[in-house]
Amino acid sequence: MFTLTATDGNARRGTLHLAHGDVETPCFMPVGTAATVKGLTPGELREAHAQIVLANTYHLWLRPGLATIEAAGGLHRFMAWDRPILTDSGGFQVFSLESRRKLDAGGVTFRSHIDGSEHRFTPENVLAFQESIGVDVAMVLDVCVKLPASQAQLDEAVRLTTDWARRTRAAQRAERTAVFAIVQGGLDPELRARSARELVELDFPGYAIGGLSVGETRDEMYATARSTAERLPAHKPRYLMGVGTVRDLIAAVDCGIDMFDCVYPTRCGRNGRAMTRAGEFNLFNAAFVNDFAPVDATCGCSVCATFTRAYLAHLFRAKEMLAPRLLSYHNVYLLTELMREARESIVAGGWSAFRQEFMRA
Amino acid sequence: MFTLTATDGNARRGTLHLAHGDVETPCFMPVGTAATVKGLTPGELREAHAQIVLANTYHLWLRPGLATIEAAGGLHRFMAWDRPILTDSGGFQVFSLESRRKLDAGGVTFRSHIDGSEHRFTPENVLAFQESIGVDVAMVLDVCVKLPASQAQLDEAVRLTTDWARRTRAAQRAERTAVFAIVQGGLDPELRARSARELVELDFPGYAIGGLSVGETRDEMYATARSTAERLPAHKPRYLMGVGTVRDLIAAVDCGIDMFDCVYPTRCGRNGRAMTRAGEFNLFNAAFVNDFAPVDATCGCSVCATFTRAYLAHLFRAKEMLAPRLLSYHNVYLLTELMREARESIVAGGWSAFRQEFMRA
Repeated sequence: MFTLTATDGNARRGTLHLAHGDVETPCFMPVGTAATVKGLTPGELREAHAQIVLANTYHLWLRPGLATIEAAGGLHRFMAWDRPILTDSGGFQVFSLESRRKLDAGGVTFRSHIDGSEHRFTPENVLAFQESIGVDVAMVLDVCVKLPASQAQLDEAVRLTTDWARRTRAAQRAERTAVFAIVQGGLDPELRARSARELVELDFPGYAIGGLSVGETRDEMYATARSTAERLPAHKPRYLMGVGTVRDLIAAVDCGIDMFDCVYPTRCGRNGRAMTRAGEFNLFNAAFVNDFAPVDATCGCSVCATFTRAYLAHLFRAKEMLAPRLLSYHNVYLLTELMREARESIVAGGWSAFRQEFMRA
Repeated sequence: MFTLTATDGNARRGTLHLAHGDVETPCFMPVGTAATVKGLTPGELREAHAQIVLANTYHLWLRPGLATIEAAGGLHRFMAWDRPILTDSGGFQVFSLESRRKLDAGGVTFRSHIDGSEHRFTPENVLAFQESIGVDVAMVLDVCVKLPASQAQLDEAVRLTTDWARRTRAAQRAERTAVFAIVQGGLDPELRARSARELVELDFPGYAIGGLSVGETRDEMYATARSTAERLPAHKPRYLMGVGTVRDLIAAVDCGIDMFDCVYPTRCGRNGRAMTRAGEFNLFNAAFVNDFAPVDATCGCSVCATFTRAYLAHLFRAKEMLAPRLLSYHNVYLLTELMREARESIVAGGWSAFRQEFMRA
């Protein structure tokens, strides 16, 4: 399912073979939580070279729900996206609910943030949901702990995550859906190592590193990503969840990570925060009112080819819907393009020089 | 500047020759108040066959202001739209401010709805603004009265509107900008006739009918539009401001109107209200949650070709930005396409039959 084509230091160039097509890695997956990457059409995502998008089991379970997505003929047809889709299991969302959820060994019971209705997730029904809606990659239901957490809490989360991964593996039915396990363990190297070892024994087709990018420092995140990646099998894809920025993507590729997802580029896009290779800036800043340069002169996207910072600054000030839409597009394009360039540099043996450009910025 | 190609009953088929290209009439002009048709890119507007868009002097004057638009190289370059633009004079907006504005014979002084700053519009500076930003069609500053109004108020509004039109005509400088006068007079046929007669004497290249679609009944609007249109020269374009719906467009073409603008299709689009040839419906209605038909099976737009009512219903319920964007696109496309079909039917002598389809609906 995964072909590792080239390596340069720890950086890896590969291809993920999924039911709806191949995904070249390293790759960034735009997040379409509720079956839509906020503000963008599937056509624009293709144009922006998105190879795969992420959606979320928690949100889709609650709305529109399984019946509607099945009646539509699956999630791809529902959202009119014909390339691969990965769904997160909803573990992260459910455990964020805190007072609204109750964990037991069998699963987690929670109340909907939409209407307060009660629902229950188990490793089995979360997998079944993802298989039923026809996604390419399903994630196991994992137990996420809010940091800082006690050693006992972290231990228990890892124990349950492994147990639930085992149950997920046993419950698997759909050939077309690849199931990835999620390594937990907070910032504790031994716990991460144990989690990785236990999950690797279960022989999943891919592994995610979860529980990071949740408030720890960048150095803590990089160190954990690096040491965890080292314990994962080289011939399987590695996915760092919830990352993110230009610098974090580059640093994580350098840790041997292949896949990323994050709401960051679209959230920044909605808030007027422009991402560029050379850093970020906020279009609400007065400096941009009469700046007729494109958002990023080095960018090849249609927004940078068509519109100026001054126009976008005006649209943001006027609270015009076109503003978040255009900037989200640019920010997503930037990250998919960044990963394309990363792939090229890895194949060409130029990863180290490429990486240095961004670490300086 | 206007070529009348064919008539069928009172319905007219023509071509408006403007600085940024020809506009085939009858035509619907999508409204881009703040230099953006809400949610849509210039590329999409072209794809949706919009020939000309409307922007608003009042809004652009306040934000981003003349200096920024001039520095951008004009409104076309600022908003990246290379087809014709018509700007409303801002009369309607300023007079809507009520407690925030003060009318005198020379002009109108008002406070910005954005920051309370004081501004003054005169016929001359409103024209100069529109000429400076390089629009194809500028509207005279007119005096709008809220209905119902006393005879004295209506009389005075017409008197001032004519006086301001005369001053506007005298102040005209830019060849490329065609200036249209606005007939006022409420629902009073004699006052409308007087307003039309006085403005026609000033020999403007085009005439708008203002002060309608502001709360009067449809029959009152149609009667006034019809009797006013009859008093306007046949060889000049006629523009009914603020209309609107499928049925109103058809009825007004039948009154001999050539041009329309309205926020209706984009406002409906933002609110989940789908426009079709057969009537309107609201996508928040529970009936659409599992309706996998397109918004309008008879529509050729890319939204109807790609997405289902169920998906749009989901997006609206989830408050996703893609929802207003997609539905606005469809609604605008519907009206530009409706006008294209109207043009064909007028040329083919089939206007009456075409019109009947919509009056039955």
